[in-house]
Amino acid sequence: MTTLKELAKLLNISVSTVSKALNDSHEISATTKRRVNELAEKLNYKPNRIAQQLKSNTTKTIGVILPTVTNPFFAEVLHGIETNATKNKYDIIVCLSDESLTKEQRSLELLSNGSVDGFIIAVARESQVLEQTAHINTVINNKIPVLMFDRVVNEITCDKVVVDDFQSVFEATEYLIKTEQRKHILLVSNIEELSVGKLRIKGYQKSIEDANLKSNVLKLSKVDDVEKHIYNYLQDNPETDAIVSIDHITGIIAINMAKKTGKNIPKDISVIGFGYEHTQLLSSPKISIVHQKAYEIGEMSVKLLIDNLKSEDHKVKTIVVPSELKLGESTK
Amino acid sequence: MTTLKELAKLLNISVSTVSKALNDSHEISATTKRRVNELAEKLNYKPNRIAQQLKSNTTKTIGVILPTVTNPFFAEVLHGIETNATKNKYDIIVCLSDESLTKEQRSLELLSNGSVDGFIIAVARESQVLEQTAHINTVINNKIPVLMFDRVVNEITCDKVVVDDFQSVFEATEYLIKTEQRKHILLVSNIEELSVGKLRIKGYQKSIEDANLKSNVLKLSKVDDVEKHIYNYLQDNPETDAIVSIDHITGIIAINMAKKTGKNIPKDISVIGFGYEHTQLLSSPKISIVHQKAYEIGEMSVKLLIDNLKSEDHKVKTIVVPSELKLGESTK
Repeated sequence: MTTLKELAKLLNISVSTVSKALNDSHEISATTKRRVNELAEKLNYKPNRIAQQLKSNTTKTIGVILPTVTNPFFAEVLHGIETNATKNKYDIIVCLSDESLTKEQRSLELLSNGSVDGFIIAVARESQVLEQTAHINTVINNKIPVLMFDRVVNEITCDKVVVDDFQSVFEATEYLIKTEQRKHILLVSNIEELSVGKLRIKGYQKSIEDANLKSNVLKLSKVDDVEKHIYNYLQDNPETDAIVSIDHITGIIAINMAKKTGKNIPKDISVIGFGYEHTQLLSSPKISIVHQKAYEIGEMSVKLLIDNLKSEDHKVKTIVVPSELKLGESTK
Repeated sequence: MTTLKELAKLLNISVSTVSKALNDSHEISATTKRRVNELAEKLNYKPNRIAQQLKSNTTKTIGVILPTVTNPFFAEVLHGIETNATKNKYDIIVCLSDESLTKEQRSLELLSNGSVDGFIIAVARESQVLEQTAHINTVINNKIPVLMFDRVVNEITCDKVVVDDFQSVFEATEYLIKTEQRKHILLVSNIEELSVGKLRIKGYQKSIEDANLKSNVLKLSKVDDVEKHIYNYLQDNPETDAIVSIDHITGIIAINMAKKTGKNIPKDISVIGFGYEHTQLLSSPKISIVHQKAYEIGEMSVKLLIDNLKSEDHKVKTIVVPSELKLGESTK
């Protein structure tokens, strides 16, 4: 590719003269402008994007900081972000925090230094657990817009796009109680330390209390043997007639384990998990799910951030993207 | 954040003088240098990353073009790319082609214009099917290094990181024939139009031919009702005693369908799929898999691309990252 430098050398003039000529500066003579433009066209010169960005003082780039993309929720949100950023002629730079506070801090600091116009971020597990989020406030104080989605920090004032974690699990549990007359409902969770996990458990508990039932929460850590714990629980508590899983994996495992204890799904026991079409495809019978609108969350995040970037007097908003109870074959 | 412009204004000198002073240029007087540096320190000025890039003529950024991250293989490769780019002090810009030729062309063109030093790419489904890959050659001809992984184009000369598609499926099939004495082995595929799919099918066929068995390939398109087709096949061909799936989903569905037809796994029928630990966790019994080293593919791709970026006389290489047959409970 032809560079400004090459044009300058070929024409035996300075790089800054070439640049000014291409930008039609009044400092440059008509003859020089003509010579420069003719050669630029002949050699198929294209202006360097970085140089243009430097000039406009915007990058038309959004920094996206995600804990991981191996979790299908974040993969699908990223799909929504990418598609809608492209539609709006923005690029994205993706950094993965890998659930680490240090890496999240590093990524924010790195990209704050002129690489992006704003950030879309879902906070790392470690940052949430340790309640360390000063690095995000630093970015906001430096007047770089930040939008948080899904894993948000209540104490930080910025745009937020969240799912209805409390309400969706409240409704799923209520469905099992009111429509299916279930009485012994187990909640299974491997994300109870996250803000979203806490809200989902609260939604379950509210629904259980409203119906005067007993709350049963099986908390599994990431390293736990999920299969064994669910299997043992079902063996020890044979009266269990429904399971609510609040993540993407334990619902399918609950179906497999319920089958293993000889229970018929959904005759003896109902299962509702979290997930997508893809999640349903992998389970047999097809799991009923709280369907999080991950793509829409990505779409909404881009829209709200660009609104903020373009507007002079942006008002901070929190948008709730409602989930949908999608019945499969694991409920009656 | 303080900018060069602000420093210049406060000191009542030109931006270029401030810049030269900060870079210790011989053109600037010692007094001016001292004034500039003192103020820069006081206001916590940090040099603009874009300006620095423009100066060094490198971006320390790798463009990564992926078909999608909702496929767990690409999500895990991206994890490997991101982690190892960070280790080597490179950023990544991720663009998703969404399996579209046009979007892949646009992303390459956009980022070729000074945003990245090189590319890591897995070709979009549409580009492979239509055999349209001139846009990739254009980038290479413009002296921007390109590395292809997984979905590669044989006709293009560049670094490649591939898995042993032929060999891994050859060995998986051979395992079923020699160790388990299976005689009626079905291959299930929803990716037969991709380069990787073609190679995997060939590996299966070679192994089947070597043993004088009959080849049975069930090709499923993306939109097909995968469950129904596998279930019907098993009903119509009850002698089937093993299934090889060459993607991440149909193996688990095959297990579910085999169970539905009343078959015992692995007594009556064995199943080997493609995937990861995560894939195994979702199936019951746990699926035996050809374990693709996706993280290592990402790691190797970064390493090889950076080698190319740093070396004057880089020799084009193809690295094969071997897969591993990881037995679960769906084989004897």
